[in-house]
Amino acid sequence: MSTCVFCQIAAGEASAHVVARTEHTVAFLDNRPVFKGHVLVIPTDHVVTLPELPDTVLTPFFAEVRRIAAVIPDVLDAQGTFVAMNNKVSQSVAHLHCHVVPRTKGDGLRGFFWPRVRYAEGEQADYAARLRGALSQV
Amino acid sequence: MSTCVFCQIAAGEASAHVVARTEHTVAFLDNRPVFKGHVLVIPTDHVVTLPELPDTVLTPFFAEVRRIAAVIPDVLDAQGTFVAMNNKVSQSVAHLHCHVVPRTKGDGLRGFFWPRVRYAEGEQADYAARLRGALSQV
Repeated sequence: MSTCVFCQIAAGEASAHVVARTEHTVAFLDNRPVFKGHVLVIPTDHVVTLPELPDTVLTPFFAEVRRIAAVIPDVLDAQGTFVAMNNKVSQSVAHLHCHVVPRTKGDGLRGFFWPRVRYAEGEQADYAARLRGALSQV
Repeated sequence: MSTCVFCQIAAGEASAHVVARTEHTVAFLDNRPVFKGHVLVIPTDHVVTLPELPDTVLTPFFAEVRRIAAVIPDVLDAQGTFVAMNNKVSQSVAHLHCHVVPRTKGDGLRGFFWPRVRYAEGEQADYAARLRGALSQV
């Protein structure tokens, strides 16, 4: 048996409230939801972070995330969704999982996207150049 | 000229620190970053939320998100990334955009994923059944 709890859920060896399975994905409720109905979507095969997700799984994985984000508002009487992945930092289980969280105006989650920081003069151009340079090579 | 500022950026009609362009995507720096080097990835063609992203763009869009999440740690001396989309609620611009934020342990962003709530007895099974029922039909 794998030591990874999400691999165990995928294999049916650990219990979870599974909401959907596809060939490459399993979707189940987060046990400690940000809001009730908070779903985690995982690739069935063990992958730690998004950069490691293989091409063969990328499309079915995000198609499933899209499908779940599409049904949540109607089913859970929500107005929108928050879709998020933590890679390494703040990643509680080292098996890629995408959070799909139902959102409603005034639910109190707004705080996350603040506070923002400000770039100093010229600094934004420097950051952009560094990223552009790296991205032009991969 | 479009009234959508992200369409304007995609068309080169509004300025932005663009870090990469592909056939279907544009990636540029968020002006008010959560942390410096915070990138937004958008589909070039106007789409409001993830559920509306067409199949033809799903794969190139998330392949680009994956590519940017892969380079950020090295380029920006970060340990990981936070990858997120707001659909409708907390969505500041009504054109789908995926945040790719550099993360470092102790950077203070951890707070977002707390507090969590708890399901009452039997409630989790009920939520799962509702989602499972809807997902079995689409």
